Amino acid sequence: MKVVKATIIGGTHGNELTGILLLRKWDVTGESIRRNSFLTQLFWANPKAFFEGKRYIDDDLNRCFRMLDLNDLETSSYERERARTIDAILGYKGEPEHGNFLIDLHTTTSNMGITLIFARNHPYLFMLASYVKKKLPEVKVYYFEHGRDDVPYLISMVPRSLMLEVGPVPQGVVRSDILEKTEAALSEILDFLHNYNTTDGQVEVDAELEVFSHCGEIHYPLDESGQICGIVHPRLQDNDYVALQKNDPLFLTFDGKEILYEGEEIVYPTFVNEAAYYQENIALCLAKKLTIDPKQGIPQPAGE
Amino acid sequence: MKVVKATIIGGTHGNELTGILLLRKWDVTGESIRRNSFLTQLFWANPKAFFEGKRYIDDDLNRCFRMLDLNDLETSSYERERARTIDAILGYKGEPEHGNFLIDLHTTTSNMGITLIFARNHPYLFMLASYVKKKLPEVKVYYFEHGRDDVPYLISMVPRSLMLEVGPVPQGVVRSDILEKTEAALSEILDFLHNYNTTDGQVEVDAELEVFSHCGEIHYPLDESGQICGIVHPRLQDNDYVALQKNDPLFLTFDGKEILYEGEEIVYPTFVNEAAYYQENIALCLAKKLTIDPKQGIPQPAGE
Repeated sequence: MKVVKATIIGGTHGNELTGILLLRKWDVTGESIRRNSFLTQLFWANPKAFFEGKRYIDDDLNRCFRMLDLNDLETSSYERERARTIDAILGYKGEPEHGNFLIDLHTTTSNMGITLIFARNHPYLFMLASYVKKKLPEVKVYYFEHGRDDVPYLISMVPRSLMLEVGPVPQGVVRSDILEKTEAALSEILDFLHNYNTTDGQVEVDAELEVFSHCGEIHYPLDESGQICGIVHPRLQDNDYVALQKNDPLFLTFDGKEILYEGEEIVYPTFVNEAAYYQENIALCLAKKLTIDPKQGIPQPAGE
Repeated sequence: MKVVKATIIGGTHGNELTGILLLRKWDVTGESIRRNSFLTQLFWANPKAFFEGKRYIDDDLNRCFRMLDLNDLETSSYERERARTIDAILGYKGEPEHGNFLIDLHTTTSNMGITLIFARNHPYLFMLASYVKKKLPEVKVYYFEHGRDDVPYLISMVPRSLMLEVGPVPQGVVRSDILEKTEAALSEILDFLHNYNTTDGQVEVDAELEVFSHCGEIHYPLDESGQICGIVHPRLQDNDYVALQKNDPLFLTFDGKEILYEGEEIVYPTFVNEAAYYQENIALCLAKKLTIDPKQGIPQPAGE
């Protein structure tokens, strides 16, 4: 199905300035994001959080889009209401596939480079990823599905959508290199949409695509009072997407001990030392590496 | 005069986690900060801001220590009251030289490495800097005096005090490398205090010391509505303490223009792209490089 409208969303998190500044830039000079075969529109998701210099006011806006929560009118907060408004403008969640495409711009303090995050197992998205990786081979593809139908992310409003996550950059800072990477990846994404539209879906993609599939989180070591009592090990710091094997170090504790990874399976760390995850004591996420056929998407276990 | 008590202060800014985590670490294992000739104590300046995940609640605590403000009992805010409390515990501001020494731990998103910041032109401090630089040559010395008597910083409470500023690290993040640098510099600082105490001030220092003396700020380019419309130029980013000459680039504007440094004098950028300074639209600070005799301090212009 053709894309009729692509919406570029910035400032879902109020302290991730890159997306917000890019929206401003494109208000001045929007040529680079226009394509002939569809409409591009801009949307600032949480201006109030930006003006208060925070990720969010009451709740993380990017966790407010579960169907359950959108429909739960008895529980209210600034972001919960904002999510309903956004869903009414850009959604609607739960509707069948349509001509809208969403790109939600994010940054991370982790050394994740350029990552495309998908919350839906949709061949269109993996074909897009393959196309983008041809032009920008350093791009990583991250598949982040919480449950079949009730994903909490903003992009879950429409079936074809992605988060463009770029780092490392501190919260509250705009770096030219991160801005440039975001623009470069976005440009390839929009090119794919246009190519798919104008060739009736006959976009050339590789037979294989490397996908990192989210499989868990690792928490900081805590003392008896529940306080963090160790830090990310120097050998793990900045090593997002570098294979983690049994007995590789995860943490250094205050009393000088090393805490090691004890899993048997090789996994890949992501969001290593992301500032926003301290609140939940999450030190890093873990992913498995899959090789898939982009035109098929991620194979489902037999019987499903 | 001997130092009787050194107070290590962390968390003056609630989102600069390194100092806060170090205080916790030293609560578990404090050996590394004990010295025989004086007492070392720990002080957490703004726990409330930390628990809210912010730099401060109402006002920047590190700008609340002007004598004028400490005495202005009609203007109240969380940090203004907190400043009075801290001054009563650790000060008092305006008293003559005494046996207290303050070390206030800070971090920056700028690439400033290890910087000792002084707000007082005191030979003791420059001798300390010379001692520390002998062990850690990469350490920079930054002299930041706002006015002769009414400096707004927490360290202004006592005549002998410094800020230990280490970066780059995002707000809300602890990195092992930054933690290590902070501990290494702190250890040398405490060693100097001990050596000075036990040798009656006969600490060997070099004849010359390089000091960066703060001389101004540069603001982001703004559009007609007062919004930032450009970013720190890639050639300036991460180049703290690298000489800036006439026609060197400062900014890239949204419409692709370069804004150049137009001063005639060679200056040195500091706090380049510091997250906390966006609020005031400050993109960087500027300093002049001086070479001084540490035993004399910074020469005063004739007639003063």
